[in-house]
Formats: sequence, C-alpha cells, structure tokens
Amino acid sequence: MKIVLAQINYHIGNFLYNVEKITEAIIEAKSKKADLVIFAELAVSGYPPRDFLEFNDFIEKCNSAVNQIAKECNDIAVIIGSPTFNPAVEGKALFNSAVFINDGKIQYEYHKSLLPNYDIFDEYRYFESGKKFEIISLKGKKIAITICEDLWNIGNDPLYTINPMDELFKHKPDFIINIAASPFNYKQAEIRKSILLQNVKKYNLPLFFVNHVGAQTELLFDGGSMVINKEGEIIDELKYFEEDFKVFDTDNLKISPEKETKKQAGKIELIHDALVMGVRNYFQKLGFKKAILGLSGGIDSAVTLAIAAEALGRDNVQSILMPSEFSSNHSINDAKQLADNLKSKYDIISIEKAYKSFKNTLSLQFRNLPFGLAEENLQARIRGVVLMALSNKFGYILLNTSNKSEAAVGYGTLYGDMNGGLSVLGDVYKTEVFELARYINRDSEIIPENTITKPPSAELRPDQKDSDSLPDYYILDKILYQYIELRKGPKEIIDQGFEEHTVKKTLKLVNTNEYKRFQTPPILRVSPKAFGMGRRMPIVAKYLSR
Amino acid sequence: MKIVLAQINYHIGNFLYNVEKITEAIIEAKSKKADLVIFAELAVSGYPPRDFLEFNDFIEKCNSAVNQIAKECNDIAVIIGSPTFNPAVEGKALFNSAVFINDGKIQYEYHKSLLPNYDIFDEYRYFESGKKFEIISLKGKKIAITICEDLWNIGNDPLYTINPMDELFKHKPDFIINIAASPFNYKQAEIRKSILLQNVKKYNLPLFFVNHVGAQTELLFDGGSMVINKEGEIIDELKYFEEDFKVFDTDNLKISPEKETKKQAGKIELIHDALVMGVRNYFQKLGFKKAILGLSGGIDSAVTLAIAAEALGRDNVQSILMPSEFSSNHSINDAKQLADNLKSKYDIISIEKAYKSFKNTLSLQFRNLPFGLAEENLQARIRGVVLMALSNKFGYILLNTSNKSEAAVGYGTLYGDMNGGLSVLGDVYKTEVFELARYINRDSEIIPENTITKPPSAELRPDQKDSDSLPDYYILDKILYQYIELRKGPKEIIDQGFEEHTVKKTLKLVNTNEYKRFQTPPILRVSPKAFGMGRRMPIVAKYLSR
Repeated sequence: MKIVLAQINYHIGNFLYNVEKITEAIIEAKSKKADLVIFAELAVSGYPPRDFLEFNDFIEKCNSAVNQIAKECNDIAVIIGSPTFNPAVEGKALFNSAVFINDGKIQYEYHKSLLPNYDIFDEYRYFESGKKFEIISLKGKKIAITICEDLWNIGNDPLYTINPMDELFKHKPDFIINIAASPFNYKQAEIRKSILLQNVKKYNLPLFFVNHVGAQTELLFDGGSMVINKEGEIIDELKYFEEDFKVFDTDNLKISPEKETKKQAGKIELIHDALVMGVRNYFQKLGFKKAILGLSGGIDSAVTLAIAAEALGRDNVQSILMPSEFSSNHSINDAKQLADNLKSKYDIISIEKAYKSFKNTLSLQFRNLPFGLAEENLQARIRGVVLMALSNKFGYILLNTSNKSEAAVGYGTLYGDMNGGLSVLGDVYKTEVFELARYINRDSEIIPENTITKPPSAELRPDQKDSDSLPDYYILDKILYQYIELRKGPKEIIDQGFEEHTVKKTLKLVNTNEYKRFQTPPILRVSPKAFGMGRRMPIVAKYLSR
Repeated sequence: MKIVLAQINYHIGNFLYNVEKITEAIIEAKSKKADLVIFAELAVSGYPPRDFLEFNDFIEKCNSAVNQIAKECNDIAVIIGSPTFNPAVEGKALFNSAVFINDGKIQYEYHKSLLPNYDIFDEYRYFESGKKFEIISLKGKKIAITICEDLWNIGNDPLYTINPMDELFKHKPDFIINIAASPFNYKQAEIRKSILLQNVKKYNLPLFFVNHVGAQTELLFDGGSMVINKEGEIIDELKYFEEDFKVFDTDNLKISPEKETKKQAGKIELIHDALVMGVRNYFQKLGFKKAILGLSGGIDSAVTLAIAAEALGRDNVQSILMPSEFSSNHSINDAKQLADNLKSKYDIISIEKAYKSFKNTLSLQFRNLPFGLAEENLQARIRGVVLMALSNKFGYILLNTSNKSEAAVGYGTLYGDMNGGLSVLGDVYKTEVFELARYINRDSEIIPENTITKPPSAELRPDQKDSDSLPDYYILDKILYQYIELRKGPKEIIDQGFEEHTVKKTLKLVNTNEYKRFQTPPILRVSPKAFGMGRRMPIVAKYLSR
C-alpha cells in the first residue's frame, strides 16, 4: 500500500485556502498512485482554532470542508483532522476527530481520547474525550488511527489514567497512524521522536506521523512528519519549517536513500529558523508585506532586523534610528553599519524636539522635580509614537524587539519599546540573543562586532547600563530559566548556589511585572515555556513579591 | 448544630493575609459557640491562582497555611478549600479539595469532581477529577461536601457524564455543603440560585453555600452565600459585593427575620456595584491609592470617573482634560462640569504643541500626504503619553475608559486611548454605558445631561461622529451581543432581521481587531462573555473577515 504524508501550512479559519491546499495534495497523491493520503490534526480548520470552536457556524464550515474533500476521494482514501459534533446528550459538544474517507464517503471517525490542557493547550475546553477504540481496514491492512497526545501517555509519569493505543492494539493493527498538531520548541523535535520511538518499540508496529508546519501567530509548527519502521528506524523525515509531501510503500519500509544524514540542528539554529518562519507567516497570513522597527544600535533590534530581513526580504523592512540627547555616537554608527551590511533601508528621526515639547507640555505638573523614570519612559514612548505613526501612514507592521529577560523583569516601557504587532525575541533570553547574533554572523559580519561586545544599555539617561538595575544577564537568565521554564521555588534556586538577595529580587520583579506582560504583543514561542498563552498568571496576586 | 458561613475577600497568593482573615473568622465563630465554619473554594490560595498552581513551592505554602489553620481548630470544625497533592502516579498532580478539619486535625479531603474548563475557567489545566464520594460526620449529622461545579451538572444539557451529588446521596446525608468560587456576571446570581434550588428540590436536603467575594483583577466575585432549607426556601443570603459572616442553626432553618426583602437588584445596578468593587479591589490589592484618567467630555470617561470616585474617593482621582484643535467647546465645558459636580480634581493640558512638534518631527516622511488615520491616532497617542508620564511621575494607575462596543470593533487607538492599568467599561456596551450614566444620575445630576445626549465623537478630526464609521450603537450592540455573548453565526443574525451588509461588516471588524484586543488592559468582567481570559481567539485567522 502506498501512503502519502502531506505536511501543509494551514491558515486558521481560512476554509477556502485550506481545502484548496488539501485538494491539491490529493490530486498529486492520485497521480502518484497512492492508496491513502494523511493530513494533520484539525487540518481543515487550522490549529489552534481556539474559541471559534464555540461557533456552530464554524463547525458547520469544517464539516462542509470535509464533505467537499470527500468528493475528491473516489480512487483514494484520506485521513484528515476536523472537529465533529458529539451526538450524545451528555458531555461536551465536540470531538477532535480523524475522519477516514474512502470511496468518496466518510467511513469512520476516530475521536481523540487524550486532550492536552496544559501550557498552550486548551483542548478540554472544547472537546469530549473519545472512548471508542476501533481500527479501520484498507487494502487488507488494519490501521490504528491516533491523534497527537493519544500516543504521549507513555513513560513513568502518566498524565492520564488511560492509554488509547493499548485499547487499539487489542484489535491487532498492522500499523499506527498519528496525526498531530505538535508545536515547536527547541526541545520538542527530540522529545517527539523519543515518544514516537517508545510507541514503536512498545507495540512493535510501524508508525506514520503527520504534523502541521508553519506559524499561527505565536505558535510555530516545525513539521518533521516521519515514518518509523517496526525495527525502530526513522526511515524518513519530512522537512522542518517547510511544507512537504512524500510517498511511502508499506511493503518497503527501509531507510530512504534520499534521507539526509545531516546532524540534528542545534538549539540556536532551530530558534533562528523558527523565528524566520514565524515572522514570515505572521505577515503572509495577515496579508502584510512590510515591517518597521526602531534600530537602536543594540543587540536586540539588530538581531530582530536580521531575522526580519531574512523572513520578509531586505527591501520590506524599514529601520528607524531615533537618537536622543542620551544616545551615544557608537549607537548610531552601529545601527547604520548593520543596515548597510544588510543593504536595508533606514531613516534617522531625532526625538529631541518632541521630547522638549513634551517636557514643556508637562512643565506645570512636573515643576522642578528631578529627572527620573517618567522622563526615561517618555523618550521610549515618543519613539513608540513615531514608529506607530509611520506604521499607520504606510501600512507597516511594527516589530517588537524586546527579549525574554527584559520581558521577565519588566525592563521595558509599556506603550514605548514594548509596542509592536509581534514580538520576535520575547521568548529568547538575552544570553541567547547574543548566541543568535553569532549564528547570524556565521559566514560574515552582519551584526557589527561592537553591537555584540559593548555593554547593553537602554540609553535613556547619561551613562546608563542595564547592569545598573539588573543582575548580570549570565546570572539573571539562569535564575529566570529555573523559575520560568522549570517552575522552581526560591529555596530550590538558592540551594543551587545563587545569591539569596538576587534570587528574591528577580522573582519579585517577575511577579510584579505581570501587568506589563499582560499588554505585550504576541510572542513567537520557541522555548518550552514562553510568556503568553502558555503561561497564565494573575495580576493582583501577592506571591514571592514582598 | 451551629454553622457559620464566612464570606471573605481573599488575595491570591497572599498567604499571610488570607490565613489572618480565616483565623479571625474562626475566633469569632468560636465566640459565637459555632460547631463548624465554612470557607470558600481554594480559600487559602485565593481564586484563581492560575499557573502558580504549577509551582510546588506554592502548593506547599497552601498546605502550610491549612496546617496553621488546623491549629486554631481545637473546639471547632472547619471546611476550607485548598489545592492538595494527588498521591497517585497516574493523572494530574493536584486536586481542588475541601479540607475537613476537626479536633485540630485534617480528617478528610473531598476532591472536586467536575472541573469547569470553559469561559474563564481552566481547572482541568491543573486538577485531577476526584472520584471518591464519601460523606463526613459531625455532631451526629452526616454531611455531603461538594465544590462549586459539582452541583451544576443538573438540567437538560449536562456537560459532564457523571453527577457527584448522586453518588454522595447514596450515603444518606443530612445536608449538603457547597463551597464555591462562582464569579459574577449580571446574570449569574439568578442562575446560581436556580441551580442551588434545583439541587435542594432533587435531593430534598438543606444546602449551605459559601462563595468568594471581591475582585481578583478582571474576575469579580459577588458573594451572596446562602442557606436553603429542604423546603426550598432561601432562609438567608449573605451580602453582595461585601464580606460577611453569619451563624445558622441546623435545627432551625427558617427564613431569618433579618432577611432583607428588597427586590433583586436590576442589571445596571449590579454592573455598577460590581465595577465599583472591581476598581476598589484592584487598587487595594496592588497597594495603590490614586487613579488618573483622561476626561474628554464624552460619556465613557464621565462614567469611568464617577465609578472611580465612588471606588477610591473623589480626592484620589485625578482627571486630565487634553484639548486639541479638534475639541469642541462643549467637550471642555462638559468635562469641567462633571469634575465640579464630583468635587474632583482636574488639570487641563493642551496637546496642540506636542502634536505640532510630532508633525514637524515626521514632516520628511509624511511629506504632503493628506491628513488621515495616522494623524488621528497621533493625537490619541500623545494623550496616552501625557497620562502615562503623570502616572509614572506621581504613582497613579491610569484607568482605561474604552467601552465594549469600541473594543469589539477596534474603534480605539492602540497605545493611545487603549492605554491603562485596568479597563473599567471594557465589558459594558455603549448603550449600557448610557444606562449606567442615568443610574449614576439617579438622585442628582452628576454626569452633565449634555454628555449623555450629544452624539458620541472621538473629536480627532473636524466634525467627526462615531456614526461616520460605525452603525448606530443601538443596532451595533445588538449584533455584537448575538455574536459575542450568544456566538451566533452571520446567517442566524441576519435571519433575525439585521441588514446583511451591517452584520458582515460588524463581524469582520470584530475578527480583524483581535490583534488590538490582545494588548488591552485587563477588563472588569460583568457579562457572561467578556473580552479577555474568557474569550480566546487566534489573531492570524481568516474567518468571517473577508
């Protein structure tokens, strides 16, 4: 039997587009004499459809899409993800289903049993857990269909009290199919492979895995669909960060001669590729072409520009240099040098006059009070206003350049440098931003060396350095990682050898700045725990914040 | 047996504070010779603790708090909500528990079985569903303990496949206790009573219900704890929107002579009282006293100011009038009149010079392009910068004055009038804002009549009216209600008699403005479907947005 894995970049709620992409793949599969094409979880709607699932109109459109796809399936079978209505009176209204289409008809619907509801997942918000564990037959083969999480309750710390594949295995399938929406983080591809291999080993069956690819706002899907034979060899992987389409023969599951043997991409390379895809897809799916950003001469905006130029094309990114009286000469020069290295456009717009005008406007209220945080923020906000004015006038999307370390401790100005339609580096710690810069410079110097080596500064008052207010990033990022990614408490972190004062100050900064992060742009998620939909915190709480 | 209902305004993660409040109630209950004090669901942590539940340190602090409380319980029993660890290997790590303390010891833990995971609820994110249905005994009485949602799977459209009270009923309890965290919306108190009464009727048992009171950022808890006798009479209700404490005798469950027979508050009165509590608690729990807001002469900022003055005291609210060349005389006069009526402070800060300065700063880029949206937004953003500068300098929290209709269709400027620490009216449709104004004026004119009767305008260009860009609010709000609260599709709404063009335009505006709402301040939730944590939408989707 010939099976096609179709790895597609869907667009949430864009049924016309999704059905067209799916239909094209079916037609191509037919031309390759395939017997079955497999699409990803919730392919017809795109993933995650979130609360659109609560609209009957949306579900009906999903069902129409499936019926339309079925019409293309005269000489071929299809397995495709779609939400379906739960006909039972009791329980939630929907299932997350894998629809099996054969002879132009829907012949079976398998309903996802294990519904992830942690981190960025909200599936139990919408779906009833499937409790029907039957297998399907096609061309004499018995097939166990599973959906993503259904294969993940394996290992020593099971999150669920049942294991769907154990039930399906009782029917003696010939192989396993898993359709998924397994989002990227820099650890995920490795974990995913390990989970799939554990299943192959446990059930001694070949496995066909189909994932989403592409970005849906903050969520990035890296693709990497694959086939594993029952000996536990990954016989081929589809592309990472790109659409792909491949035919496999169930009678010949040997390692493909085409399979690239290049070594696994490292963490920073993965983050880089994911961010490029994230920026590119955000603009494509919103129907925008051009980005704008403020270029300070510092490392964050430099890396953001380099990524945006790669994602959108250097001609589609407009940088704005906005010097003030506190800007150093090297900042301007470093920023210009970067734009020149990238052959990317920049304008210089001084904020000095606007700053003076605001100080004048506020002179009565500010009287003779000393320069302070209000004046620092004022400069950042004037820059924010300039960038948004240009964005409104010329149809740019403003890219936010804040990094995860800053976002964590609230080192940024709300409605100032925290502005933007999309945060490119908001899930990348400062120390990782430096690594990204080195990676971007791997072949030639794009980001000026001085930008990488000079001490970070916001340049909002004379001789300001980040280290005036914050612990050294090398220490800070380690503490943040323990608290944010690993959710360690203060005692556990201090016990690792970090200074008590620094740990307590850091945790307090994180917790008292939830109000700022509440209003930040969506952040491209590259780590196992990003700010945003995967980390939900109260604002008025008082925990570790005294 | 004498039972105390303790209705307390907890603070999330503030264990010192919560334990002190709980201990005070226990001491008072002892002085009243009570046998049992009942506290709300997750009382020790405050509700909702959200992802703090993923920190072991946080759960350990909850457990310590319970142990500390147990020490106060020598001569009295207590039922109190707390997260507890799930000792089983399989399943999620925690239970949402009602801890029964007697003789100074934890004698039983009931684990919540039905875990709400819709709208603002995320309980299945954290908790394993309890499957142990035992009852407790105290002073010869058998008591069925339930937690909030456990009693809600009653009626014709059950969301869950089991009903915990059916299981508990098999042990023949003498009465039911329900500890809850049932948040306010203007329909909730009525629905809640109906649900509790259905349970009393079904099981023919008295019911003791204890709720939270107070605001936790956007979530408002209205209290209204109550006792219902087995005849189905609500013998007494605790206060709404205030802390309360009352003793009941299980041998004498008759309607209290003290029970107020005043009629049920209407929708607008409920919204008003909820918003006042919401503003007050937000400031108290963050440790702030003073608010600032921009006063335009329009109805939204007028109602916001009136509510803030009631919540915080008129001396703690600073209004700023920021006229521009497009401001009408009546706007300034109406705004002044309102501040005078409230005896509240205001300053006038013209934005004309700052506006000119920005136009000058941007003159090269803007060349001779015609006045447009960029210039309108520029004015709103300059006002935003002025307000934030004052907020930073003097420690005010900026109150956002946008209403739900504007938030829905994106009629507002990001980083301009959409700024603020808290959105007071973001869940109140424009037509409801008018009703609120009339309610605020119920005894005397506080909000000037002209503010209520003049046509709404943003005053960002000459002779601008909201009705230039938007359907009449009377129509718009009805369409929005169908789409947002009721989740009707376009066809269903058009079938109700609304113009197809208007419906499609409105739904498109709602869906294409998710990116703006993503960055809005937390919104005090007063309706069954508020923007924010209870409504989760993708940004890059393309659904009803062509």
